[in-house]
Amino acid sequence: MGEFDLIERYFKRPARRAALGLGDDCALLQPAAGTQWAISSDMLVEGRHFLSTVDPFKLGHKALAVNLSDLAACGAKPVAFTLALALPRADEAWLAPFSKGLLALADHHRCELVGGDTTQGPLNICITVFGEVPVVGGRSQALLRSGAQAGDDLYVSGTVGDARLALEVFRGTVSVPAPVFDAARLRMEQPTPRVALGMALRGVATSAIDVSDGLLGDLGHILKQSGVGASVNVPVAVNLIASLAICTGLSASFDFKITPHDWQRWALSGGDDYELIFTAPAAHREAVALAAEQSQTPVTRIGQIDAHRGLRLVDAQGQALPNDFTSFDHFA
Amino acid sequence: MGEFDLIERYFKRPARRAALGLGDDCALLQPAAGTQWAISSDMLVEGRHFLSTVDPFKLGHKALAVNLSDLAACGAKPVAFTLALALPRADEAWLAPFSKGLLALADHHRCELVGGDTTQGPLNICITVFGEVPVVGGRSQALLRSGAQAGDDLYVSGTVGDARLALEVFRGTVSVPAPVFDAARLRMEQPTPRVALGMALRGVATSAIDVSDGLLGDLGHILKQSGVGASVNVPVAVNLIASLAICTGLSASFDFKITPHDWQRWALSGGDDYELIFTAPAAHREAVALAAEQSQTPVTRIGQIDAHRGLRLVDAQGQALPNDFTSFDHFA
Repeated sequence: MGEFDLIERYFKRPARRAALGLGDDCALLQPAAGTQWAISSDMLVEGRHFLSTVDPFKLGHKALAVNLSDLAACGAKPVAFTLALALPRADEAWLAPFSKGLLALADHHRCELVGGDTTQGPLNICITVFGEVPVVGGRSQALLRSGAQAGDDLYVSGTVGDARLALEVFRGTVSVPAPVFDAARLRMEQPTPRVALGMALRGVATSAIDVSDGLLGDLGHILKQSGVGASVNVPVAVNLIASLAICTGLSASFDFKITPHDWQRWALSGGDDYELIFTAPAAHREAVALAAEQSQTPVTRIGQIDAHRGLRLVDAQGQALPNDFTSFDHFA
Repeated sequence: MGEFDLIERYFKRPARRAALGLGDDCALLQPAAGTQWAISSDMLVEGRHFLSTVDPFKLGHKALAVNLSDLAACGAKPVAFTLALALPRADEAWLAPFSKGLLALADHHRCELVGGDTTQGPLNICITVFGEVPVVGGRSQALLRSGAQAGDDLYVSGTVGDARLALEVFRGTVSVPAPVFDAARLRMEQPTPRVALGMALRGVATSAIDVSDGLLGDLGHILKQSGVGASVNVPVAVNLIASLAICTGLSASFDFKITPHDWQRWALSGGDDYELIFTAPAAHREAVALAAEQSQTPVTRIGQIDAHRGLRLVDAQGQALPNDFTSFDHFA
């Protein structure tokens, strides 16, 4: 099967919103009046971002999900994406499920595949997404990393640390009951980009970022770019991942042989969560709750922004706790 | 050196046209009124698109050049691009010249690096470019592959087959005098995207494509998508590459031991030329000449579009010639 047949068979569909989709030198897109474009690129490499044994359907989902998560963190509405794909060979048994998983998530978010590239090479998936953000009265409604203010509440969506738990099981460092592993694995392999929450937080949140490298590390980007500090309530953060065990009716400490420090570490620096961390003034608590309800996305308040720089872990009583958690770095 | 240091050191510069550049979840770009966006992605893989020994400065140039060439083929004005980069390791001796070559070409075209991704993995460079195309009276001015009409003239810019000649020298199948090799190698390693020509051809050309897989193969896309055929004058096309030898005062047949069929084959199906093939009505010959002059880009008329489908090679007298040339396919 040649390159052009491959594109035709698995990826080409009629152009929808695009003035011109796949099959010319460029795709053409008509920006809507009164909007800005939010653009993000992510590259996924075999052995680094996913295991060679991963189900191609799930990989297709995840490759787009991590990009949509960046749009979510800006409050942008997904519009279109390009896909560049290096494959060791044109393998239909891989391409068919990969394209299905990719396009199913794309359809769910009405995000159109408008162009890209295919080539022979070590498996590499590079997606660039485009989303729209309203500009109101000359002011962009995009959520940035730089808007956090001292006194703001600090929130995280969903749960964190689940993907890391699944990774540790794959690595054989821990073992958990099947229902817990299945849930954690689903979170690792098919993360849910918080697109609806991001859009609902426009005008409500003062800053946002998505958690790809770990909660504390990614929160650090907000703090640095906003010139502020934060106090994070560890027990609450830990409960986010421990709730996975609680929901299945199993006690983490009894059944899993996982120390509380492990739970903490995975929740705070595990990475691959694709949840949103965001800040909002205390006066917006009702608006945050409404955004969570409208988008059907759980959010948890995990701390607050301080004028004093630095990131402090505290317990439920506000007492300082040691912080020896580090974030993920692709070249560290 | 960590991932964030790496981005800071080699790629981050103040945002220019972008409302927000590197350093947030997404880049934000404000489309100009009355324009459409042209978008294209290309992925370059070591061993497939470039040799591991290539000068990183030249590779940085080429990685962006092949993308700008797609914008040129649509008549789009470059605006911005994203870069996703997988590297075996964060090697400053490679990154410094790579970013210099990339950003030098970007600056030349006022095309701003607005975002991207870096990760560890087999060397892979994925660039997505964004350009603007005017929309006049509700009509896009983009040059498409589908607009060629029977009776149109057929043109190619610059010269074709040079990159293939350089590749054959690298492969050791032929040997040529140093000045010829140097010129061919420059064309292979640092191709010139015909951006100014593409923009000047808006409203003049009826269709266009850039030559990446070979003249005949890429012309085939115009013919298929326009539902027409073409007659191509081989001797003229061959002269495009032979002119390289003529310019250096050397005779191809005498010095190079390269058969006329080799010259032909490289010119017609060599690939990696990044020239534009385009069509225009005979009534636009003066306008084509003016566009060539304004953009300081040589163009040569190499045939014409026929209502009768298929691609026919003809000699200067219009007599049919055999066509046994095939195009490049990444998975064939």
